[in-house]
Amino acid sequence: MDSYTQIVLASRPSGVPRPENFRIEKGAVPKPLDGQVLLGAQYLSLDPYMRGRMNDAKSYSAPVSIGGVMEGEVVATVLESKHPDYRSGDLVQARIGWRTHAAVSASNLKRVDTGGNPLTTALGVLGMPGFTAYSGMKVIGQPKPGETVVVAAATGPVGSLVGQLAQLAGARAIGIAGGPEKCAYLRDELKFDGVVDHRDKKMAEKLAELCPDGIDVYFENVGGPIWQAVLPLLNRYARVPACGMIAYYSGQGPAEDGLLSQTMIAVVRRSLLVRGFINTEFVEEHYDGFIKELAPKIASGRIRYREDIVSGLESAPEAFIGMLAGRNFGKLLIKVS
Amino acid sequence: MDSYTQIVLASRPSGVPRPENFRIEKGAVPKPLDGQVLLGAQYLSLDPYMRGRMNDAKSYSAPVSIGGVMEGEVVATVLESKHPDYRSGDLVQARIGWRTHAAVSASNLKRVDTGGNPLTTALGVLGMPGFTAYSGMKVIGQPKPGETVVVAAATGPVGSLVGQLAQLAGARAIGIAGGPEKCAYLRDELKFDGVVDHRDKKMAEKLAELCPDGIDVYFENVGGPIWQAVLPLLNRYARVPACGMIAYYSGQGPAEDGLLSQTMIAVVRRSLLVRGFINTEFVEEHYDGFIKELAPKIASGRIRYREDIVSGLESAPEAFIGMLAGRNFGKLLIKVS
Repeated sequence: MDSYTQIVLASRPSGVPRPENFRIEKGAVPKPLDGQVLLGAQYLSLDPYMRGRMNDAKSYSAPVSIGGVMEGEVVATVLESKHPDYRSGDLVQARIGWRTHAAVSASNLKRVDTGGNPLTTALGVLGMPGFTAYSGMKVIGQPKPGETVVVAAATGPVGSLVGQLAQLAGARAIGIAGGPEKCAYLRDELKFDGVVDHRDKKMAEKLAELCPDGIDVYFENVGGPIWQAVLPLLNRYARVPACGMIAYYSGQGPAEDGLLSQTMIAVVRRSLLVRGFINTEFVEEHYDGFIKELAPKIASGRIRYREDIVSGLESAPEAFIGMLAGRNFGKLLIKVS
Repeated sequence: MDSYTQIVLASRPSGVPRPENFRIEKGAVPKPLDGQVLLGAQYLSLDPYMRGRMNDAKSYSAPVSIGGVMEGEVVATVLESKHPDYRSGDLVQARIGWRTHAAVSASNLKRVDTGGNPLTTALGVLGMPGFTAYSGMKVIGQPKPGETVVVAAATGPVGSLVGQLAQLAGARAIGIAGGPEKCAYLRDELKFDGVVDHRDKKMAEKLAELCPDGIDVYFENVGGPIWQAVLPLLNRYARVPACGMIAYYSGQGPAEDGLLSQTMIAVVRRSLLVRGFINTEFVEEHYDGFIKELAPKIASGRIRYREDIVSGLESAPEAFIGMLAGRNFGKLLIKVS
């Protein structure tokens, strides 16, 4: 009999997650009931938001319970179908979590639609991270020709698309990333207009040099010291789409004495717009346009992306911990089978 | 020969302004040149933003220079006109600052338009403070029936209108004010749905009790500890129009360790909108509608307002210092002549 593997939350981390916060479990692959299909995961997406789900805190989603399967989205193959709309071999996306197999109701499935691009893009540049970048820029950031757009975690699946969308809109793209290799990629491969290494002690000064006309859009997905460097540079009417706070997820924000008042005074004095969002709130209005607009540009190479694929579900905890420390390079995926 | 009186910035305050930061000067009333009119101020508006202009800091407006006349708006009578569009006796509004007289170019004047309401309303409920409330709610706050709107400094000219506009939109209005007299006014006269005294040690708990369904709009004009009480109550998609930070103007914000990260995490998790603004950015699109919509409601008593009028320009520094400490009650005006 086939067995499945799954990874559950063994204990809640305090601060940075550690391997012992996860536990690997195995069991017999379930049989699908009527109306269900049995899925075999091909790729699992690992994303920063998952750190938030490990806490017992109020958010837009409930936390993972102790002993519960870690949440996440996969692309999977239908192995067996008890639903008329699906057949064995169909490719679907589903939020089955960190599991190799799951029997799920057909109503929880979405067919993979990548416009001919590789399957993995459904979890990255044409998936949730890509749509986060697209919708945040479309609805909130709204870059205009000649404006300056700054994004951190710029080699990640959200940040790299934010910068490229800025340039497609005629704006300048300034990326912030950690280490020379990532910075070189932004400069030489993605052709960002400017790059700053956040490990550089003069990060704030260098960012200011690269933004002589200030910053019009800061796409906020990290929080922490980068916000302090960005804040004085934000122009009047600057927009700040905010979709992540990776610097704070593990409860270890930097010292920030006086920072809230500085932030709020800047908000008032410079008519800043700060808008938090989660991509799902824009799906209904903008998802179709996203695929239609981006899939051809990805297929033609006009928009580029980078993936960091790690083999084996058992490697997921270590890969996830590495991602939170910035050790991945590109969209982090687990090749499950 | 007639003499004028003016009040200049003698020195920049550190923290709370003191009388010695101001200086009274007198001189001979000027003669208007061709194209100018000579104004005699009737009322001077005193507003919290003026504290910001006393600092040597970058803002949407340049600071007042040392020895320069304190900025401000007046309603004034034309005493002598060298411009064909104005005659002696005309009533106008102008930003001549803390002065009894000024000869100014006619292009800097605006005719008083209160729709038949008293002259003083041109500086309050039908002037800049009223338009701040109106445009911030119209463009950013957008209260809907059944929602909960919270405003601080709620007996002030901005806050009292914010609450009444919330109720006109079918929302609940919760006001925060300092002391039993102001709270009674909100509850008994303006009929707010709930009132909290910010001097109450259990302010945060009482605010939470008054907002059992959370807060949908927080009109931010104070900053400081009230933000800390409001933040945990903000609902998903809550809107925060932010036009003032009186708690921070004197550079004495409260201790705020960890508050920026708490704020930014809430912004992301609950899709909050925080938008700073200054009323002038909305004048072109919304000012006519403001007068047209509100003037009749003020005339009929449907919208109420309260003024705190102090006599004599020489009293302006003390009145202004008192306002920053919350000692005024209603729109603070100086009766100049």
